[in-house]
Amino acid sequence: METERFSRQIAFILEIDRLKTILRRSYLLDESRHENSAEHSWHLALMAMVLAEHSNEPIDVGHVISMVLVHDLVEIDAGDTFCYDTTGLATQAERELAAAERIFGLLPEDQRGALRTLWEEFDARQTADSRFAAALDRLMPMLHNYKTGGRSWREHGVQGEEVLARNAHMAEGSQTLWEYAQEFVHDAIERGWLPAGLTKV
Amino acid sequence: METERFSRQIAFILEIDRLKTILRRSYLLDESRHENSAEHSWHLALMAMVLAEHSNEPIDVGHVISMVLVHDLVEIDAGDTFCYDTTGLATQAERELAAAERIFGLLPEDQRGALRTLWEEFDARQTADSRFAAALDRLMPMLHNYKTGGRSWREHGVQGEEVLARNAHMAEGSQTLWEYAQEFVHDAIERGWLPAGLTKV
Repeated sequence: METERFSRQIAFILEIDRLKTILRRSYLLDESRHENSAEHSWHLALMAMVLAEHSNEPIDVGHVISMVLVHDLVEIDAGDTFCYDTTGLATQAERELAAAERIFGLLPEDQRGALRTLWEEFDARQTADSRFAAALDRLMPMLHNYKTGGRSWREHGVQGEEVLARNAHMAEGSQTLWEYAQEFVHDAIERGWLPAGLTKV
Repeated sequence: METERFSRQIAFILEIDRLKTILRRSYLLDESRHENSAEHSWHLALMAMVLAEHSNEPIDVGHVISMVLVHDLVEIDAGDTFCYDTTGLATQAERELAAAERIFGLLPEDQRGALRTLWEEFDARQTADSRFAAALDRLMPMLHNYKTGGRSWREHGVQGEEVLARNAHMAEGSQTLWEYAQEFVHDAIERGWLPAGLTKV
């Protein structure tokens, strides 16, 4: 029964186990360790289920879930790029494109196309679903930071202004979640967990 | 804008971060550490996307995905019960029921019901979707074991017969996946990674 098609599917399933070893800058809320990209993707999927009503536009929650489940798979080859790392961001697109070729390429052709399209949609932020997915992807690391006294922000010398600028696109997906994020970022600045930034705010 | 409803949703999102600290008996394929239940849930969701065609019956893939995303949340309080631990299995239902009350109870009432219903459906295995979800939930730890030379089976003195008996319900969800699993379990027995069991096979 082990057809070529089935073997390809299993090869993909085994390969993606590696996303569990890709570490992000965020700490778990109990600060015991850094978060990995597989469990982060799971968290976003649950957030999509629970927070869907806060999207600016009507969305297909199932489609948002599928998108966040695959959105970080390219990191298996390309690594996680910290959103405040301007050097890393410059080469991110190229590294991730090569990764997508290889990783989605493990699948049978029809599935390769379907999963790759989800990843491209997430990345382009041109649809209501992907704008909401991106808002979730920005909200969670900010929450992790805020709830751990700004630990990862402090360790990487991130400024409050950068946080607000880098995450402002959240408003395109969810005005509600962006307003909430701005509130706690300002609170973090007031508490001294995050320097305000280069200019006065 | 922080309504009671929104505060409850955020409290739930923060609480479930703890699933990332619940360790299973399985090792990652690179054997660097034990797997946690959050990343395991993510893996099952991807498997549902890729392996859906192998379900015995027609399924709603989106519904299967939602189910596997929430199926282990009760472990935050109840811990992971190893499927070959008969003592743990005896008290599992009671522990998980109390956990479900508390954890789903963090959510607004309508969402509490919806997520709890998904968990109950998974647990009861009375629908095509839940039978397929359960087959995935059994396949992956067997694959982790097989691809790591039976490491967790060996560490816990599990017998080949037990593996076949405990996982036989996979056939109700996917005859294809169960046949595949039986093949590699027999191979593991032949390779000496798994003692055959109490009686001759």
